[in-house]
Amino acid sequence: MNASNAISAYRKQIERELFDHVIPFWERHSPDPEHGGYFNCLDRDGKVYDTRKHIWLQGRQAWMFSTLYRTVEQKKEWLDMAASGIRFLRDHAIREDGRVWFALTADGRPVHIQRKIFSECFYTMALAGYAHATGESRYLREAEEQLERVWEWSKDLAKVGRPVLEGQTPSQALAIPMILLNLIEEVTLGEGGKYRAEIDECIRRMLLHVHPDRQLVFETVAPDGSFIDDPDGRFLNPGHAIEAGWFLQHWAQRRGDRELAETAADMVRWSFRSGWDSEHGGIYYFLDSEGYSPVPLEWSMKLWWPHCEAMYAHLLNYKLFGRESDWQAFAQVTDYSFAHFPDHEHGEWYGYLDRRGNVTHRFKGGPYKGCFHVPRALWLCWNTLREMEVS
Amino acid sequence: MNASNAISAYRKQIERELFDHVIPFWERHSPDPEHGGYFNCLDRDGKVYDTRKHIWLQGRQAWMFSTLYRTVEQKKEWLDMAASGIRFLRDHAIREDGRVWFALTADGRPVHIQRKIFSECFYTMALAGYAHATGESRYLREAEEQLERVWEWSKDLAKVGRPVLEGQTPSQALAIPMILLNLIEEVTLGEGGKYRAEIDECIRRMLLHVHPDRQLVFETVAPDGSFIDDPDGRFLNPGHAIEAGWFLQHWAQRRGDRELAETAADMVRWSFRSGWDSEHGGIYYFLDSEGYSPVPLEWSMKLWWPHCEAMYAHLLNYKLFGRESDWQAFAQVTDYSFAHFPDHEHGEWYGYLDRRGNVTHRFKGGPYKGCFHVPRALWLCWNTLREMEVS
Repeated sequence: MNASNAISAYRKQIERELFDHVIPFWERHSPDPEHGGYFNCLDRDGKVYDTRKHIWLQGRQAWMFSTLYRTVEQKKEWLDMAASGIRFLRDHAIREDGRVWFALTADGRPVHIQRKIFSECFYTMALAGYAHATGESRYLREAEEQLERVWEWSKDLAKVGRPVLEGQTPSQALAIPMILLNLIEEVTLGEGGKYRAEIDECIRRMLLHVHPDRQLVFETVAPDGSFIDDPDGRFLNPGHAIEAGWFLQHWAQRRGDRELAETAADMVRWSFRSGWDSEHGGIYYFLDSEGYSPVPLEWSMKLWWPHCEAMYAHLLNYKLFGRESDWQAFAQVTDYSFAHFPDHEHGEWYGYLDRRGNVTHRFKGGPYKGCFHVPRALWLCWNTLREMEVS
Repeated sequence: MNASNAISAYRKQIERELFDHVIPFWERHSPDPEHGGYFNCLDRDGKVYDTRKHIWLQGRQAWMFSTLYRTVEQKKEWLDMAASGIRFLRDHAIREDGRVWFALTADGRPVHIQRKIFSECFYTMALAGYAHATGESRYLREAEEQLERVWEWSKDLAKVGRPVLEGQTPSQALAIPMILLNLIEEVTLGEGGKYRAEIDECIRRMLLHVHPDRQLVFETVAPDGSFIDDPDGRFLNPGHAIEAGWFLQHWAQRRGDRELAETAADMVRWSFRSGWDSEHGGIYYFLDSEGYSPVPLEWSMKLWWPHCEAMYAHLLNYKLFGRESDWQAFAQVTDYSFAHFPDHEHGEWYGYLDRRGNVTHRFKGGPYKGCFHVPRALWLCWNTLREMEVS
């Protein structure tokens, strides 16, 4: 198969997966006709096994359907689906002070709040996506206001209840600047607008995690970027580092910053190389940079989302740099993913495999898996492959 | 092999394991000569991979060495080991209000606090064990005072910072009454003393989790003991239910309560039956009572501690009731454990296996695994087998 045929073959495979197997699963099983929003805890066949609604996933699903409506086809069902989530989120998920719950009952009463800012981030992402889908500026204003609050909290997590204790090692987490950078992309549709200084600050902070001498991207570093020699400092999260790579790449391209573009591409390549399980295939969930056993029990499992991120990140690298090895990496992770995660009997992807690639959890949606990483990655890859087909 | 030979063979195997392979590992690698207390994050060969000290494990190790000194042999090294932990705990682990940190730096500065009462419980257990080992009554008074505080907090976890939210389903966790009942056993050396009403209350609450109609022990139930049909309510933790069984059995024996004794024995038998993986062997970490995929990523892993609890619980059942099936269950779980967990090259047991029994984490000690479940179970089994040899 020549390169152009391979591009078309992947485009077709991904297109079928997205529009025939993934999106229909959520359209069919997730809507809550009584209270609005989405059931996100769905068993293999779509049956609701927990009626609680997790706000990360309510926000992400509203964003996803808004974005499909805006970029793929103005289907009324997609906009209605997004609108239902937005109504539920605005009516129930946010407190007066702007804090956003982590989980609600089906009818919107709070069950759980995290001492983190991610619920707030995905709430903001949903509003931004819906604003751009509908053109209704009041949602964009709300998203901007919420982004401003999140920005302030991100500088001092004590404000969302994280205890500050004397023995803690001063550190910063990659998760914070990367989600903020992605939020600015979603709020401004990649324009950046008034957020120039904030974008610079996110990029600066993200690059502190990139250690070219080791060809590693550390999840947690000291405030000056230096290595912390404890399990937190040694912690590698290849999927996260790969996702951070393509978040950065989008800004590098917009800014025409070639050095940043090379670094962002390398973050993906290095993290894929160190994260790939050469014995059983797939990307490890976590690793320890010095080769110790990572402490989290799930470290050697293969989760859907790092593979989703890696598919798009490698494809983007290939499109931008044309290196054969980037294409090979895209094909490797895409072939692994399609061989292990999809469930063509009931739709959507399984989320969790053991190290050897056996499915360990049959559900399609849970407190941390919903209508997001699979369709976002497929949509991004589909767009990219179509651009490549045309060019 | 006849029964008496089998008893002696297991007694010898367990004796060697405890005194030649497990206790020496902690004696050799865990002491911190500089600051006192114990390094509890130890790699396969005993190397310290994280210098932080986790208070659950500091308390449990101090209790373990105190108890070995009191019941096995008055070795000065064992008492010194216990004393070092007690000093570190009293100097650093407790706040003025009685709250106990979850993790400290090696030199005793706080890193993490939980919104739970377990650090406080294991702190109390350590003081009680040390008081009984030394006969020094001031430690017992401190343990009693701390038990009183923990008892109050256990009635309202909002007092330790757990948020109370409108959408939460009223429920109670088996973990709370079972640890309190065990604490009273440790503080009073099984006498009960002035805690008659508290013991009654713990037993009453624990029995709410036992559903004989289903032959299941639920981790979380409604305040009246009824089943909650969501992932929390359907959650089964076989190791925990088995441990709760032998905690209850000790009081049933002391009180001569035959009905309670039968129930406690059944808790162990039912939980072992429903928790055993008939395909790959070993006890599942978690299950869903209705057969859904449990949400925690580690549900199908085989952890050391449920197996430790099951060894002793079945042996105790057999000693008390003489049923051949209890002996078979003891042999089954003990043989599985000895085939999978010990590391005779470096000592102690591995803690974590995948569903198929492959070691997934090479370390011997971590934030939740230390000098406790393995030596406690071996010590309990050794005592029980010796009593059976004599009789």
